[in-house]
Amino acid sequence: MSLTDTSLAEHVDQIESRTAIAELFADYAHGCDKRQSPDRFLGIWHDDAKYMMGEPLGDRQGIDEIRQALRDIWALTDESHHWITNVVVRFTGADSAEADADTICYCKLADGPEVLVSGSYLVECERRDGQWKMAVCDLNVHWQKEIEFKLPETDAG
Amino acid sequence: MSLTDTSLAEHVDQIESRTAIAELFADYAHGCDKRQSPDRFLGIWHDDAKYMMGEPLGDRQGIDEIRQALRDIWALTDESHHWITNVVVRFTGADSAEADADTICYCKLADGPEVLVSGSYLVECERRDGQWKMAVCDLNVHWQKEIEFKLPETDAG
Amino acid sequence: MSLTDTSLAEHVDQIESRTAIAELFADYAHGCDKRQSPDRFLGIWHDDAKYMMGEPLGDRQGIDEIRQALRDIWALTDESHHWITNVVVRFTGADSAEADADTICYCKLADGPEVLVSGSYLVECERRDGQWKMAVCDLNVHWQKEIEFKLPETDAG
Repeated sequence: MSLTDTSLAEHVDQIESRTAIAELFADYAHGCDKRQSPDRFLGIWHDDAKYMMGEPLGDRQGIDEIRQALRDIWALTDESHHWITNVVVRFTGADSAEADADTICYCKLADGPEVLVSGSYLVECERRDGQWKMAVCDLNVHWQKEIEFKLPETDAG
Repeated sequence: MSLTDTSLAEHVDQIESRTAIAELFADYAHGCDKRQSPDRFLGIWHDDAKYMMGEPLGDRQGIDEIRQALRDIWALTDESHHWITNVVVRFTGADSAEADADTICYCKLADGPEVLVSGSYLVECERRDGQWKMAVCDLNVHWQKEIEFKLPETDAG
Repeated sequence: MSLTDTSLAEHVDQIESRTAIAELFADYAHGCDKRQSPDRFLGIWHDDAKYMMGEPLGDRQGIDEIRQALRDIWALTDESHHWITNVVVRFTGADSAEADADTICYCKLADGPEVLVSGSYLVECERRDGQWKMAVCDLNVHWQKEIEFKLPETDAG
């Protein structure tokens, strides 16, 4: 080992940054799905962030439009569960990074069917005032498919 | 960088703790699903841990009741696969932390249908004798739904 | 804290190694599923790696056979999405480690049905020339099941 204290501190900083970025995705899921308050979801975004969802939800810019996006998601779905995996972080500077992730998501559409959604995220993260948050989140929905669960035939189970 | 060696060591300790906690969830899945031995699943719990599964499996306290819980899960299901994601760790002290995670789980019920289960975990972890383990695991099952897979029409594939 | 600088550096190195190994699984998913180029998938393997997929895809040895394996997967499926979770890393030396992970995977078979696949990975990773890559990946497919999604009845949604 030939790491100096300074470079050790830089390594540790990068590891902590990576964890913070991975937790942004987790907080995206918990914040969208638990629905107790918008704060957890809104906390992952910089004030001027871009949340690019594509059609039909469209692209949103700035925290006010993202707050509305969350309201829209909650209005369009009675329930959602994201399972986000495959996180990769690529640093592009001391305070900036790109991250990839994939999700499988269950939604109960409002007054509608249950669907599974397959999507991928490409995110630009920035550290400002010591906080890693999303500056750009580009969501690519591969498909949304209706799934028909079977009603149980008995009360057992 | 102005981190002293002492604080660097504390940062490293916290990163390692976070990883250890994340791996508790992974070992929960592998330990429950692989079914070679109860040891891997039992190894994630402190001796006096609480495993709160809600109905119908109920709440269990202490490693003996948790061992029985695992036997019950294995008796009720012929097969299970947990895919646990969205791990977030919040330290509440040097040796204590809360953690969130979500799972999508497939189960083949014993002599029954195949189901998908959506659940969330809220866990209190403690480090005792240098080992991070679960002290309380509160499982919230959002739903369990029967899924009907289609039998293949041909032998191909 | 009584960690010396040397042991601190070793701890940091191990944390970074763990992250690098976890990202191999993520790059496996992105590299197989995104299909822009084989490079991302091929980049996770050592030149002499073994990729043991079992029947029907069989076992492959060496980067050329793994390149062909990827071609085979892409020929057999029009689309795939892996959601890989439950990563556990066990170091067996300074430059070697075993890792576990599980996947739920969606595939659209070429000219065939849509399936869900449940699988587990047991991987031997080695660091050579400073790079962690897979030396052996043993994939255990628990099942592959046809899933029939429902076509939407209306254009809405």
